[in-house]
Amino acid sequence: MKALVYGGPGQKSWTDVPDPKILQPTDAIVRVDTTTICGTDLHILKGDVPAVEAGRILGHEGVGTVTQVGSSVTALKTGDRVIISCIKSCGHCANCRKGLYSHCLGDEGSSGIGWIFGHLIDGTQAEFVRVPYADNSLHLLPQGVSDDEAVMLSDILPTGFEIGVQYGAVQPGDVVAVIGAGPVGLAAMATAGLYGAATIIAIDTDRNRLDQATGFGATDAVLSGTGTWRQQVLDLTDGAGVDVAIEAVGIPETFGMALDIVRPGGRVANVGVHGKPVNLHLEDLWIRNINISMGLVNANSTPMLLKLVAQKKIPAERFATHHFPLEKIMDAYDTFSHAAETKALKVVLNR
Amino acid sequence: MKALVYGGPGQKSWTDVPDPKILQPTDAIVRVDTTTICGTDLHILKGDVPAVEAGRILGHEGVGTVTQVGSSVTALKTGDRVIISCIKSCGHCANCRKGLYSHCLGDEGSSGIGWIFGHLIDGTQAEFVRVPYADNSLHLLPQGVSDDEAVMLSDILPTGFEIGVQYGAVQPGDVVAVIGAGPVGLAAMATAGLYGAATIIAIDTDRNRLDQATGFGATDAVLSGTGTWRQQVLDLTDGAGVDVAIEAVGIPETFGMALDIVRPGGRVANVGVHGKPVNLHLEDLWIRNINISMGLVNANSTPMLLKLVAQKKIPAERFATHHFPLEKIMDAYDTFSHAAETKALKVVLNR
Amino acid sequence: MKALVYGGPGQKSWTDVPDPKILQPTDAIVRVDTTTICGTDLHILKGDVPAVEAGRILGHEGVGTVTQVGSSVTALKTGDRVIISCIKSCGHCANCRKGLYSHCLGDEGSSGIGWIFGHLIDGTQAEFVRVPYADNSLHLLPQGVSDDEAVMLSDILPTGFEIGVQYGAVQPGDVVAVIGAGPVGLAAMATAGLYGAATIIAIDTDRNRLDQATGFGATDAVLSGTGTWRQQVLDLTDGAGVDVAIEAVGIPETFGMALDIVRPGGRVANVGVHGKPVNLHLEDLWIRNINISMGLVNANSTPMLLKLVAQKKIPAERFATHHFPLEKIMDAYDTFSHAAETKALKVVLNR
Amino acid sequence: MKALVYGGPGQKSWTDVPDPKILQPTDAIVRVDTTTICGTDLHILKGDVPAVEAGRILGHEGVGTVTQVGSSVTALKTGDRVIISCIKSCGHCANCRKGLYSHCLGDEGSSGIGWIFGHLIDGTQAEFVRVPYADNSLHLLPQGVSDDEAVMLSDILPTGFEIGVQYGAVQPGDVVAVIGAGPVGLAAMATAGLYGAATIIAIDTDRNRLDQATGFGATDAVLSGTGTWRQQVLDLTDGAGVDVAIEAVGIPETFGMALDIVRPGGRVANVGVHGKPVNLHLEDLWIRNINISMGLVNANSTPMLLKLVAQKKIPAERFATHHFPLEKIMDAYDTFSHAAETKALKVVLNR
Repeated sequence: MKALVYGGPGQKSWTDVPDPKILQPTDAIVRVDTTTICGTDLHILKGDVPAVEAGRILGHEGVGTVTQVGSSVTALKTGDRVIISCIKSCGHCANCRKGLYSHCLGDEGSSGIGWIFGHLIDGTQAEFVRVPYADNSLHLLPQGVSDDEAVMLSDILPTGFEIGVQYGAVQPGDVVAVIGAGPVGLAAMATAGLYGAATIIAIDTDRNRLDQATGFGATDAVLSGTGTWRQQVLDLTDGAGVDVAIEAVGIPETFGMALDIVRPGGRVANVGVHGKPVNLHLEDLWIRNINISMGLVNANSTPMLLKLVAQKKIPAERFATHHFPLEKIMDAYDTFSHAAETKALKVVLNR
Repeated sequence: MKALVYGGPGQKSWTDVPDPKILQPTDAIVRVDTTTICGTDLHILKGDVPAVEAGRILGHEGVGTVTQVGSSVTALKTGDRVIISCIKSCGHCANCRKGLYSHCLGDEGSSGIGWIFGHLIDGTQAEFVRVPYADNSLHLLPQGVSDDEAVMLSDILPTGFEIGVQYGAVQPGDVVAVIGAGPVGLAAMATAGLYGAATIIAIDTDRNRLDQATGFGATDAVLSGTGTWRQQVLDLTDGAGVDVAIEAVGIPETFGMALDIVRPGGRVANVGVHGKPVNLHLEDLWIRNINISMGLVNANSTPMLLKLVAQKKIPAERFATHHFPLEKIMDAYDTFSHAAETKALKVVLNR
Repeated sequence: MKALVYGGPGQKSWTDVPDPKILQPTDAIVRVDTTTICGTDLHILKGDVPAVEAGRILGHEGVGTVTQVGSSVTALKTGDRVIISCIKSCGHCANCRKGLYSHCLGDEGSSGIGWIFGHLIDGTQAEFVRVPYADNSLHLLPQGVSDDEAVMLSDILPTGFEIGVQYGAVQPGDVVAVIGAGPVGLAAMATAGLYGAATIIAIDTDRNRLDQATGFGATDAVLSGTGTWRQQVLDLTDGAGVDVAIEAVGIPETFGMALDIVRPGGRVANVGVHGKPVNLHLEDLWIRNINISMGLVNANSTPMLLKLVAQKKIPAERFATHHFPLEKIMDAYDTFSHAAETKALKVVLNR
Repeated sequence: MKALVYGGPGQKSWTDVPDPKILQPTDAIVRVDTTTICGTDLHILKGDVPAVEAGRILGHEGVGTVTQVGSSVTALKTGDRVIISCIKSCGHCANCRKGLYSHCLGDEGSSGIGWIFGHLIDGTQAEFVRVPYADNSLHLLPQGVSDDEAVMLSDILPTGFEIGVQYGAVQPGDVVAVIGAGPVGLAAMATAGLYGAATIIAIDTDRNRLDQATGFGATDAVLSGTGTWRQQVLDLTDGAGVDVAIEAVGIPETFGMALDIVRPGGRVANVGVHGKPVNLHLEDLWIRNINISMGLVNANSTPMLLKLVAQKKIPAERFATHHFPLEKIMDAYDTFSHAAETKALKVVLNR
């Protein structure tokens, strides 16, 4: 089959590789009908994720059709249309039993991390993919949900919801600020209403992204990088700050911005993938009763989010700004890696 | 009356001052029968808390007897024996209604902070003290609870419990590490069992304090400042780290230690009062699903803790290592500020 | 002044009574600008609530203007426009500190119950009313909220939200059924979305009320009293039953209906005021992991709901189907007590 | 092999049956080293549980040694010493993902119920047993835990803890009453301290059982069936009632007792297995903000409880009042079914 293979820092190719095979009774093989590219894939290509070895097929998002199941798979059969979760879950380790699939201790990947596709095992940017723990890691796709909608449930929608909205403990009536209006930030905005957020403030340096944000649920938009951005945010509160600040960029400046606008007793939910340490002003913060959360998605909310997507209560399709056939994935990477110019949110690849 | 008056950095005196008077209908005047000294008082004396002005009477902990009540005080009367909470609460602002007394917005102190005694208004290291919002800020003391026990409920027991144990979300079966076996760290150890902690690890650089820790509920003790301390802690877990790490010192090193021993999905509860920023390694932590909390005590658990102290289920009296008459408070400060040599935990002053 | 005075079972009159006076430093006097009638008032008039004595002014809902405040009232002043909460809260008893205002132990009413207006003290169906614990029991009304909207926040909106939606522990994606599409049932429907309910099923025997329900957030409507109603409800779920069933009628049949449609692991939230015991089939239910809640509103969500009403996110005004001047309150009672014919939801009385 | 086989109402025999075989790749075969008898087994023998067919091997509690595993079992191997959970869990159905193992929808048993041993499939009162979903339904037994301790973790300890203490939402400082001091009631008493219960009141009609209760954590004992029992309970509270009442008998009288002693805002946790409906006085209760829970154990707390048993923090061994060799199980049933005279709590059968 063909697949997008990582060749070391800066190198990738759409090339022939052997078809995947069932290795464990709990595996399934899925034909990839739709996949997409994540910011993390770009990080890997820069060489920022050393655990990814040359020869690895990239990608951790996808929608497909089951072509084969292992002997102990009971919830799925050949021909089923499925969402591939970016997180594998063995279903019986101590972490999986607590819902902490992000740190699944199951054998596959052997690393105590739930994200293995395109990382520790071959991923979804290929014609076929082997899916470990298929009963837990695949979700049956109901009629009426398109591939474009469904592929947003592999990663970005559960990430924005779980790590932004749930870890941020959004409550009815809250003022929520989301710093960074990229795909995951928009996913947080699109799901903050599930806990009754009253005001959802999008904050970004890019006016185009702010304009898009209202389509994903933002009630207000603040252009950052200006001298008044903080005051503009405070003016949208009672003056004391936002209840929840969601960081969805991943750099020290934006993390600091989150802490600068959160009220005493409020929560900062970090969703961004960081590459550097940040300076935490505990000498000011210790007395402010702030909570700071962070983490990799567990993807345990995917079945619930799928239900809402099926009811058209989450604008999942709106993330898909660009489309390519799967074999044009090299062009798709090009478009996605120049998002500022192409205004790409998610670049979708269809079989 | 006599009181311990702050005279600017490095200066204090036990001196004559005017008696306090009822200023608001919600006030009470309390005769101080027992008070104590907090590490924060030492910080103030160093000049580290600029909000404290020269002339301020210090102290935010105390047990006493009501001598006068304002016209709208209904829960108390002259002669009642009471605990003075270190936190005032107006009872009707938005924060008080949520239980966030630490950030009470009521008029007294006018600063959005619940800690005002010995900070923004005159404190408890005096013969008498004016207590604003008396119905909410004083707790009736039942028969059978000594002053020595009761004064630990003004601040240290609720601080260790709320900011350490509750913010740390201790759950039955958890492994909890407490870094720093001073009064507040010991208070966290003494109350971690209220949520079923299975293993309570005391960590300190001082062998004497570790020895004391077992009397407060620690099941294990690890001497830090050694090359193997971290491995010793991990050996007391399943190898993945502690469920909850409580920081009760307030310096960058100990905050870093907490992050070094917490498991994926675990919680770090900062109780220490910090004077410097810390370097937060978000580039490693973002993926670990760690939660970091911090804050000033709300003291909303005081009535519950008082019940347990009355039942002798919390060893409150054990904190009182040294006693002085109130008029010898200058000597008491001397003993408390040399805790390493005097082995003082709490220095108690009785009328 | 004039007031609606209860004269014993079956008797009421709009008559002259003395003006209310400040009795405690925590009191305020409020001129009633808008009030309304509750189903409970009809129960009282039937003689079903023996605690209400002849001579009592009825009514526990209202919006008005402060005309006088006691000496310790700090959050309000003469001229302030306020919502009168149906629940008084002293702010310092053990129950108020836990947010359980419904069982406030404060002196006023002396009965351990938070609902005292038109019950244990004189109520709001009058030109003026004395409000105890004014700082806690009145809510400042912002510009842009009409009296018609605001008066729904005295009782029905917090009751539907707290006792239906919050006690029912509605979660994102849930299927919620509300049995009874009267004012409080509609209030539950109007607020179930604050916790992300995916499907909100209105169930009633009255087709007119079902038609109205969609304007309050219901996604589906089922006419009960038919042989197929239960199957219709189950067809809107995965077949196992609803996640949350909210009972908003108050008779044994409807309580039984709630238990008949709830899934294993689901919740039944009773909001209805019952006059008879019900038969609970514990022989079937014990194994089903059902939770049953019930209670009087605490009205601690009122400030949050007010914010959402101000943002026009809750259709509060839509409850006000009929209007009368205050002095025509006898006619208003007539209209409200024949709701089936008049199609009245809430009958609003304006000064 | 030999097994205890149900022969229809009133009939049982210790007789020869075929050895169990692996039927699914997720199965294990376990040699039963220790088992015990549950009150439910007596109900089955009376014919009260029609789903149990003649020919069924009884028993749902046990400790044993793995003798064979299916091809997809990864967490266990031959020779492992294990606890057999009374609840099977497929690990991937919607209910298992929520931790609601009691209503596992997996194929085995096909009934949406997690309790299948000795009910819908053959049970543990036999020399060998087939265990479906072995990775999830068996727990590895560490060194230092005896069979007598471990067998209490199959059912009674998690039942008392989850359905009594957790569903009852016990909180630090609470007054908890447990009605019924049989094995499951005692298990609730033994684990109520994990959430900081301050007072644990054992209530029973049998003086002997009350005497035993203090060994399991009860702080107070009240003999019921007397005219003053209720007042005695209230005297152990602030007068308003207990915070949590746990019903562990299963008859209408005791359920009514629970409601009679619970405070406004309190919780009633039903653990008893009921055979008849109860009369619920909603006309009094609707206003009292009571929560009523009930259910079959999920056994998702077993790993945590096992840890505490291993630390000797739960007196598990104390339940084992009588011992028999497995082949004398007919005698053991005789002893257990006359518990009032024999003073049996749990009758343990060893290989």
